[in-house]
This record gives sequence, C-alpha cells and structure tokens, in this order.
Amino acid sequence: MANDVSFEAITRAAAILRGVAHITPVMKSRQLDEKSGASVFLKCEHLQRTGSFKFRGAYHAASLVLSSGRSRTVTTISSGNHGQGLALAAKLLGLSAHVIVPKPASALKQAAITSYGARLHLEETRSLAEATMRQMIEDGQATPIHAFNDPHVIAGQGTIMLELFKQVPALDIVLAPIGGGGLLSGLCLAGHHLNPSLQIYGCEPRGAADAIESLRLNYIVPMAAPQTMADGLWTSLGNRTLPILRQHLTEVFLVDEEEIVAAMRFVYERMKLVIEPSSAVALAPVLRTEPALIGKRVGVVITGGNVDLEALWKSLSPGAVPP
Amino acid sequence: MANDVSFEAITRAAAILRGVAHITPVMKSRQLDEKSGASVFLKCEHLQRTGSFKFRGAYHAASLVLSSGRSRTVTTISSGNHGQGLALAAKLLGLSAHVIVPKPASALKQAAITSYGARLHLEETRSLAEATMRQMIEDGQATPIHAFNDPHVIAGQGTIMLELFKQVPALDIVLAPIGGGGLLSGLCLAGHHLNPSLQIYGCEPRGAADAIESLRLNYIVPMAAPQTMADGLWTSLGNRTLPILRQHLTEVFLVDEEEIVAAMRFVYERMKLVIEPSSAVALAPVLRTEPALIGKRVGVVITGGNVDLEALWKSLSPGAVPP
Repeated sequence: MANDVSFEAITRAAAILRGVAHITPVMKSRQLDEKSGASVFLKCEHLQRTGSFKFRGAYHAASLVLSSGRSRTVTTISSGNHGQGLALAAKLLGLSAHVIVPKPASALKQAAITSYGARLHLEETRSLAEATMRQMIEDGQATPIHAFNDPHVIAGQGTIMLELFKQVPALDIVLAPIGGGGLLSGLCLAGHHLNPSLQIYGCEPRGAADAIESLRLNYIVPMAAPQTMADGLWTSLGNRTLPILRQHLTEVFLVDEEEIVAAMRFVYERMKLVIEPSSAVALAPVLRTEPALIGKRVGVVITGGNVDLEALWKSLSPGAVPP
Repeated sequence: MANDVSFEAITRAAAILRGVAHITPVMKSRQLDEKSGASVFLKCEHLQRTGSFKFRGAYHAASLVLSSGRSRTVTTISSGNHGQGLALAAKLLGLSAHVIVPKPASALKQAAITSYGARLHLEETRSLAEATMRQMIEDGQATPIHAFNDPHVIAGQGTIMLELFKQVPALDIVLAPIGGGGLLSGLCLAGHHLNPSLQIYGCEPRGAADAIESLRLNYIVPMAAPQTMADGLWTSLGNRTLPILRQHLTEVFLVDEEEIVAAMRFVYERMKLVIEPSSAVALAPVLRTEPALIGKRVGVVITGGNVDLEALWKSLSPGAVPP
C-alpha cells in the first residue's frame, strides 16, 4: 500500500489545483539565514486558502469524489485545518460536507468551518466522532476523506514540493512538521522523484513524540496524551504514511515547547507573519542552528496560520507557561 | 521648492537601493477583492528591512551624506520607524547615527534603534528633542535627516511606486496613509511621471485630520492633539510635502478608529499578516467599499508592521476601546 501514490498522481493533483489553490510565496529573511548558518526558504502555506496547506489535499480528494460520480457528500473528522480545507473545497465543487468535530475545538475553527457552508457535528469525544462517521458511511450518506491517510490527500499535499522546486533551485534539505504524516508523505514522494538525494526531515514536538517512536519501532504508536501547544500535531501516523516516511525521511528533529514559542515570536516580530504553533515546530531546528543544516539550502514548509489572537498572545506574552 | 525632487532623482535612488532594500512582495486576497469590489494589490512594505518603508528614504539620504563627504554622522528626531530605518542605514554605510526620541516612545522601538548600533537620546518633550538636535547641528557633530521633509528621503520613498508599476500593470488608483507626507510625495512624483492619469489618494485618521485641513487651507495646520492609535501619523505636513500633495492628490479619505481596528483584524485573521495601525488606515477605505474604488485596480501601500504583540492584542481584543 505504501507506494500507491505515484509521482504522476501528484502532477495530476497539481493540474486539478491550478487556478484553485494559491501558488504560495517563498519568503527569505536575512536574520533567519544569519541565525541558522543556512540559506532558508519559507514556503508560506499559511497564506494558502483557508490558512493552511490542508486545502490542497482536501480539494484534490473531494474533486475526485465528484468526478467519480459516487457521491455528492463528503465527510471527515477534524477539529482543525483539514475540516476548514474540506469545507471550502466542497463549497467550491458544489458538494455537501459534514465535518465532525471532536471536543475540545476552538470556537474560531468551528466558525470557519460553518462559514464555508459545511454542516458541523460537534461530538464530546473522539470515539463518539468516529461512531457518527461510521454511521454516516454505513447509511450511504457520505464519502469519507481522511485528513492524512487518504492517497488523494497525500497527492494533493505533494504539490507543495512541485511548486517549491520551481521556486527555489538546488535545495539540499526540506523540513516539515509531522502530525499524521500526510504532508510529509506527499513531500517525500514528490521530492525524491525530482531529486533522490534531497534530505527530508520531519519535525516533532518532544511532548508528542509518537512519530519518531513509530518510525523506530515500525508500528503505529498511538498518541495518548499530547503535551504540546502544537495542536495540529496531536495525531498518530497512519498505516499509509508510516511506510512512506520510513522509506524516505532522513531523520526526525525533536523540538521543545520553548523553541516553538521562540520561533513564533521570531516570525511575528521580525517577519511580520502570523503562524500557528505546528508551523513553528519546523522552524525551530533552523533557529537553534541545527548542525545538519549549516551551509545548506533549506526549505521549510510553514503549514498554517490559524491561531486566534488571544491564543497567540497567551503563548507569546512574557511569563506565558507552555503546557 | 515643491518640484525639486525629480523623477531622475527617484530612479537614482532606486539604483542606490538595489540589493540593499528588499523588493517587497505584492499580495492579493480574494476576500479583499470581494469586500471592496476592486482588484486590490497590497504592496507589502511592512516586509521591508526594519519593518517599514522608512528604510528606503533613510538609506538613500544617508548614502548621499556619505558620498558628499561632508559628515560621518547623521541625526534625526523620531520615535518610530524612521529612527529604525536610519539606524540600520547608518550601520550598513559605516556612519554613526544619533536618534533623538521624544517621549512617549515604546520600549520595543527604542530597543530596535539601539540594536542597530545607533546612539539613542531620550527626551522628555518634542521641544527638548528639537533643542538637542539644533545643538548637535550647531556643534557640527551631525547632519540631520528629516523623516519626511528631506528631498532625498522623498526620492527614496518614491522607489516604492517604481517597483509597484513593474509588479502590477495598469493600476488605476494608489492609496497610502498621510503622516508628514513624505511617502505620498514620493509616490505622487514617481506615479504621475509614469502615468499622469493615475489617481492617488491619501488616507488619514479622523482623529488626526490635519493633512486634509492643510491641503484645503494651503498652509500647514499643526497636529495638536492626535486622537488615533495610528501613531505613525501623529505629524503635520512639511513645507516641502504640502505643495507636492496639493498638486497631485486626488482626494483624502478620512477613516474612523473602528475601521482601523477592523482592517488590522482582517489582515491578521484572513491574510496572516501583522500590520501596524498606520498601515491599516490605507486599507480601511478598501474594506468599506469606497465607491471611487469599485471596479478599479487599486494599489495599497502597507507601510509598516512594527506593532508589538501586547499593543496588537489590546487593540484587537473584544471590548478594546479606541483612544
């Protein structure tokens, strides 16, 4: 199952996303280059539609549901960016979307999901959310689109690497955060097709270090009690993403909460950008002058910017205590 | 005196700034286009070095002080972005800079000025600041570089329009905030040389509406007690900028404090960008669907992003009361 997302699938996804997804800009910062000793290129997916890269995979997968003719309704479980991405994708494609949101879920993200016209189902627990989803599928009401373990979602996320290669020649290394591994799977499959010697690193909070364990042990270590503000990374790997990442990743960098805060603060103060904690996880190794990066041309995927101002202030204010 | 900044001076400034100032990106937002009924292009000078457009004029003027051989030290009165711009310019050129800062002045901005190696002189009042400046000039210690009434500063700011014309074809209208008028003077001189039918609008907070009055009465109405959070615009016009603006500006849009807050919130939430209140002043007419802009191609100069997080939170949090 690992290799059922081909490079051709990724280029087809890019064709489907053309004119729909933004070609997000790449930004540089002299101060970032100085701190890292590297030449760093930020791929700004927080400026993607809906404020995160998730729109790519969600739109691609939903468009294939539409063209297959098998359903006019899609569904997913997501308390965050995938839910928003799928909600907008469905709206653009003329599909209905049911987004099942397990608590806790921020009011801001719920509002964003409904603002795109999706139907929101708030559930007390993750297992209740899964029961609702199963019921919907069994009733033939809706086609599920998984946030990261769906091959079409992975292909959609892989289009980021196609763009990055066009925008930045001769990259040595690419960094991205690991949650469920859908983004990194797409990046790996596209990146190693284009340049087999590209080094791709996952970045993971030390307080949710399940992926590094899963990769070491070669089975999915469940994410029990995440201790990190990077709420986008509170998920385990999937059975589709684990083998792809085991084959392709160079290594995983673990990151402390203080480093996440420092990275968010850096881009806020110096680059005037708003990024969410999960994005900062991939920037932290750059800011701590990780030895493997020195002297290299390094792409960093900034995955999203959906952090409400109160949460940002609470995270970054002097004396803020990481969870 | 009005016309002593030629288009050639602006193109020379562009040559001096090449490779030193950033060519700042232009950003678009579908939601902004929908709200405004226009096609809106944000010229992102908040991503300029030091976080504001002021670096352009300051560097250009300081480089001419250096090449004239008449001084190795520059000085200015500024509690804000011009002070930071001049501090970095001096550092890059190997000049000394004395930045005289009248209170009140934010700790963040003071720290930024000294971080670039400039000498900071904190003064209790504006008139004490001016006395310190006069003394420095009389002692032959330093060459003053005025924040907006200096022709080389105006020429430096005009380079923004040269870039914008290259980046965005067939603009109909350009909007920018009015403080002392240096930015708009440069934009007018460059813009009307390139396209005499370009419409250029100044944008001013209703709580600091001295420029609109000065333009109407044709003398400099002093800015007595500004009632606006847009602290970059707490200045009167200068004797050099008033006649340029009278000749070139189409009109001035006045903006309420609530509109400034709404514009900051919009770019924070939807575009993931941090802009300071003065920048939001030029965006507010777009967001209120100003009739003159409908159906047009509109450039908006986003002037700076130097707002500390606490101030941003205080401005945008629910229940925040404008001054």
